[in-house]
Amino acid sequence: MVRFLAVYDKPDDPDAFDRHYREVHIPLAKQLSRLRRYTVSRNPVPTRDRKAYYLIAELDWDDMTDLQHAFQTPEGRACADDVATLAPPDKVQTMIYELEDALQ
Amino acid sequence: MVRFLAVYDKPDDPDAFDRHYREVHIPLAKQLSRLRRYTVSRNPVPTRDRKAYYLIAELDWDDMTDLQHAFQTPEGRACADDVATLAPPDKVQTMIYELEDALQ
Repeated sequence: MVRFLAVYDKPDDPDAFDRHYREVHIPLAKQLSRLRRYTVSRNPVPTRDRKAYYLIAELDWDDMTDLQHAFQTPEGRACADDVATLAPPDKVQTMIYELEDALQ
Repeated sequence: MVRFLAVYDKPDDPDAFDRHYREVHIPLAKQLSRLRRYTVSRNPVPTRDRKAYYLIAELDWDDMTDLQHAFQTPEGRACADDVATLAPPDKVQTMIYELEDALQ
């Protein structure tokens, strides 16, 4: 399984961010091709003396081919563009990684 | 479901880090009480011009009670202490959050 992770810093206007995320971004993301899982976590609690983030989104696909295909569609481009509407480049980190089961 | 996320910066000595992670840390983490899922992701790829991290570990429990209990046991304290052996405080971020299904 491959994951797209987006970590947002606290926005200048949390109410506007929340509204846009709920009313625009989630509906866009739900259209992504072959998306298997999509979770949103608000106000993660740091357990060491490091920065607190505002929202973490995790989007999972079966494999890298499906993920890459999803972001090449018009729906995928619209979703990626909307991240830039949600947050300036210095206020969001996005990354892709494969999940390896460490319990096996 | 609740998740404990650990994000490690690139270590000064990646070989020593990898060896310690594999031979010491994973065996410790696997002993955590009621741990449901544990994934390790290496070399996540940033998709915007932001920092690249080295390793991401995700550990899941059914609920916050189980997570908190796990870290109060001797095994949990040993595992948390071992994070400090793996990385100095400015090279690892750890946080806890609840997962909300956005696809529902």
